[in-house]
Amino acid sequence: MNFKIRPAIKEDCKEISRMIMELAVYENMPDQVKIAHGELERDGFCENPFFECLVAEVPEEHKSKEGFTVVGYALYFYTYSTWKGPSIFLEDLYVMPEFRGNGIGKGLLCKVAEVGKKKQCVRLQLSVLDWNTPSRDFYAAKGAQDLTVTEGWHAIRFDGQSLDNLANEAAKI
Amino acid sequence: MNFKIRPAIKEDCKEISRMIMELAVYENMPDQVKIAHGELERDGFCENPFFECLVAEVPEEHKSKEGFTVVGYALYFYTYSTWKGPSIFLEDLYVMPEFRGNGIGKGLLCKVAEVGKKKQCVRLQLSVLDWNTPSRDFYAAKGAQDLTVTEGWHAIRFDGQSLDNLANEAAKI
Repeated sequence: MNFKIRPAIKEDCKEISRMIMELAVYENMPDQVKIAHGELERDGFCENPFFECLVAEVPEEHKSKEGFTVVGYALYFYTYSTWKGPSIFLEDLYVMPEFRGNGIGKGLLCKVAEVGKKKQCVRLQLSVLDWNTPSRDFYAAKGAQDLTVTEGWHAIRFDGQSLDNLANEAAKI
Repeated sequence: MNFKIRPAIKEDCKEISRMIMELAVYENMPDQVKIAHGELERDGFCENPFFECLVAEVPEEHKSKEGFTVVGYALYFYTYSTWKGPSIFLEDLYVMPEFRGNGIGKGLLCKVAEVGKKKQCVRLQLSVLDWNTPSRDFYAAKGAQDLTVTEGWHAIRFDGQSLDNLANEAAKI
């Protein structure tokens, strides 16, 4: 199938927002999504954006059952390793189910790697859920290392009250 | 013990670089460190820096055995959750062994949380090694959640040849 990968523009945010929700449904956590297209426009298309995004688009004649031509996205940002230097982090990679098996997911992943290399990034990292075997196999087949398995890295999070508590303590220091 | 936490300046990079190596030795991976103070100066003190850093400083009379007064650091950057919005990621938190137990680590963590709240971040995240029980207990005691345990998130990495392969494939798309 013919498809094109291009940088997202502000006007894509409604489509990206729709697909963020589709991905969250797949990950069994749709109630976790608090971000809508307005926030994406504000956070991704400002002077110092929090993220960048690529979208995959198919020609009008291949549009989805519901009439969508933007059928996948890759949202990423830049991080830093104090051991290795600049890195790129792929927060979301998604292709609509009816468009899978056409190389769109691989295309998005490769384009993000290309962006990273252009910015001198030495790593491309991402997170995946342990039960998501198709995704884990997809990344492993392309040479990725599972750092949680090989080195024992765990992801830790403060949010809500625990984050507020820390910030409030800071005032006393 | 008296200590002060302040934003790092370019001139602190030699001290930060020294402590990055000390932390890597603690994590049993000193041969992984390819970054020196020159790269930190370039990547952290440019127009669009890849990271920000806080340092902890003690008065001259409390300097370390080797004569150091900069005795801890917290290096962080901004990330983005497509479910929740802007987030802050704590890449490194380190206090020199002889200065532990004085609240410096907690102070650095709280100050990073405060920076995050000021930037409207809704999460503070970090990675920790599974055998590093002191750190895991430290974060858990302050209300952090271990997402690898509770939700099954794994960290995945492409680097070296696997990253080059992806980027080279992109040219064909």
